[in-house]
Amino acid sequence: MLGQYVTKTRKTHPLIHCITNYVTVNDVANIILACGASPIMADEVDEVEDITAICQGLTLNIGTLNHRTVQSMLAAGKKAKGLGHPVVLDPVGAGASPLRTRAAALILEELEPEVIRGNISEIRALANQSGKARGVDADVQDAVTPENLDAALAFLKAFAKKTHSVVAATGAMDVVCDGENAYVIQNGRPEMSRITGTGCQLSGMTAAFAASAPAAERLDAVAAAVCTMGVAGETAFGYLAPYEGNATYARRIIDAVDHMDEKTLDQEARYARR
Amino acid sequence: MLGQYVTKTRKTHPLIHCITNYVTVNDVANIILACGASPIMADEVDEVEDITAICQGLTLNIGTLNHRTVQSMLAAGKKAKGLGHPVVLDPVGAGASPLRTRAAALILEELEPEVIRGNISEIRALANQSGKARGVDADVQDAVTPENLDAALAFLKAFAKKTHSVVAATGAMDVVCDGENAYVIQNGRPEMSRITGTGCQLSGMTAAFAASAPAAERLDAVAAAVCTMGVAGETAFGYLAPYEGNATYARRIIDAVDHMDEKTLDQEARYARR
Amino acid sequence: MLGQYVTKTRKTHPLIHCITNYVTVNDVANIILACGASPIMADEVDEVEDITAICQGLTLNIGTLNHRTVQSMLAAGKKAKGLGHPVVLDPVGAGASPLRTRAAALILEELEPEVIRGNISEIRALANQSGKARGVDADVQDAVTPENLDAALAFLKAFAKKTHSVVAATGAMDVVCDGENAYVIQNGRPEMSRITGTGCQLSGMTAAFAASAPAAERLDAVAAAVCTMGVAGETAFGYLAPYEGNATYARRIIDAVDHMDEKTLDQEARYARR
Repeated sequence: MLGQYVTKTRKTHPLIHCITNYVTVNDVANIILACGASPIMADEVDEVEDITAICQGLTLNIGTLNHRTVQSMLAAGKKAKGLGHPVVLDPVGAGASPLRTRAAALILEELEPEVIRGNISEIRALANQSGKARGVDADVQDAVTPENLDAALAFLKAFAKKTHSVVAATGAMDVVCDGENAYVIQNGRPEMSRITGTGCQLSGMTAAFAASAPAAERLDAVAAAVCTMGVAGETAFGYLAPYEGNATYARRIIDAVDHMDEKTLDQEARYARR
Repeated sequence: MLGQYVTKTRKTHPLIHCITNYVTVNDVANIILACGASPIMADEVDEVEDITAICQGLTLNIGTLNHRTVQSMLAAGKKAKGLGHPVVLDPVGAGASPLRTRAAALILEELEPEVIRGNISEIRALANQSGKARGVDADVQDAVTPENLDAALAFLKAFAKKTHSVVAATGAMDVVCDGENAYVIQNGRPEMSRITGTGCQLSGMTAAFAASAPAAERLDAVAAAVCTMGVAGETAFGYLAPYEGNATYARRIIDAVDHMDEKTLDQEARYARR
Repeated sequence: MLGQYVTKTRKTHPLIHCITNYVTVNDVANIILACGASPIMADEVDEVEDITAICQGLTLNIGTLNHRTVQSMLAAGKKAKGLGHPVVLDPVGAGASPLRTRAAALILEELEPEVIRGNISEIRALANQSGKARGVDADVQDAVTPENLDAALAFLKAFAKKTHSVVAATGAMDVVCDGENAYVIQNGRPEMSRITGTGCQLSGMTAAFAASAPAAERLDAVAAAVCTMGVAGETAFGYLAPYEGNATYARRIIDAVDHMDEKTLDQEARYARR
């Protein structure tokens, strides 16, 4: 049952080093606190190894990358790998510019991150090292649907196998897989796509969940983080007044993560194993 | 009627490249989503042309400018101009430091942005290439009032004519004009000035509206964006509980944009043509 | 009575220059507006002296420091000192990396800030120029408690005396002191530690309060800012619905500052003079 990873994260209370974009960084910090972990943001190359050394997990998000921060990501990532901390890569906008695609590919090659969390277009861009992303949103033609699920699963498992990672491709239908096994998750609400940074937030929370679970249970811990985000999106939507919209919804999703517990996640998570 | 531009933006769903300050960037992203467009933030000079090329509009905001990002603004702006995308300049704090005044003037000269959106003190600083701005707020002595409206209109139309742009000078009384025609808009609430970034948000949304309308209707589209912000400020204020203040008000304004439709804007917009 | 400093800040309406981290900067801006002041964020070294020159106070926060912004902090700080503006240092994460500890120590030595606002672990790291901070949170073993209060007061007064500053060490129990006198403050809620940036917000608001009071009353003005944050935390907590959590709580605290007045602070502030 996935709910146990909610409890583990609250009990372990890991410190998560985030090198992440400045658009959604405040929400990333608050959702990491909401799930029971603590964030620290630090991107100066002369301190990232020291900061990572006092943490238990690292999330690298290229949403507003620049040459300086890419170097910091590589330095922090190498240190984290050496210490055995899980590294989560969020390849925001991979495929939207050659710089992003190359930076994501470089991080993938040099660091072999334990987890890759992106939308399906970003994952495809990373797999093909090219792409036609529509900015930071997934391309509609790429979306995972019941019709193309078998093909998507085969592609994602092959990518996870090749990269030795757990891959979380999130969208209307989420797939979380390693080279062998997958969770197909159907929590969440379409309205979540009208909020900036739900993906970034999930990547931060995923690092917290991954840092709190043994390596052998990483697939389950990542699936638990994805379900937590989706269930929080459903719960939060239920509390919206008719006049409230995307900005309040964003607050309420983090609030719902703050209230999430093992029992709720076990009851509300909707997934199939594949 | 201006409401049609709300519908056009939702139908066109433009992708807006934002090079904007890190203070208000999250709200800018959420309001762009709320009005039916999508934002992408990217400021590394080696990718800004690629990012702009997949977008339909560009907003340049100098609120936390540095030498690196000014170069990125110029590069992105030149690419956007070449592609025929509307460029919106928000000269935040022009007049507050020589660096800002010069940067805004440089962008104005090199790019000839299609739209300039600022408070009246910033517009004056830009016109005079000097200034005595009180930080990022308009100087009280500069404010557009019923008493000085004729003089303000003459000044703003002359500036719009000289810069071949649509100028939106916003405050208690908003003026949106090109070299010939103006909208004088009286929506909004004084409490909006107690929220950081309503101007930045409006600049982002203006790029979305401008990207969704033909060039010949740009004046109307920009006026529609300004009215949308003002009406949202009025609607949101009506939903505030007595104990709620500026931080919740900020969320509710974006919520109100999320719910804005053609009919509401046509009913609530209060403006005169001049 | 401390409430008078709420009124003074609203009447003086100071402009506060903030060089602060990108994680919590939006909340810092909104809380500065909420208490009646105005913020301006500027970190490019070529403009920070000009910006500081039009302001009345300066806050320096090293939460996401880099080499570029540390130089800007030093340049802005020297200008502010020359103009007699109070400078507030928030040594976020001092002790978490040698770079942060050294940067904070350098600012301390070169600028002699009028106010130092941090958690007790950060203050200890700064005093010892070393440390074992748990990221940006205080170490549990460092916490000021009724049991170790006498020792903490002796340490903090000695540090304030040595640095010629007002020191605000905030946590479950807050101490605000100069070399001679202290306030021991017991406002606030434990749930405030589940929000990112309450400390950063307090540092920004402290600069506003300090800029609005004569130098001879600085200790009282800083204590008033600390009490305002704590009382706002209590008030805001009372308005939370059962399903609301840390993200909404963050908004409501700023809302409560927006509504704070002299009478409320005088009634609700809980402190002892030592």
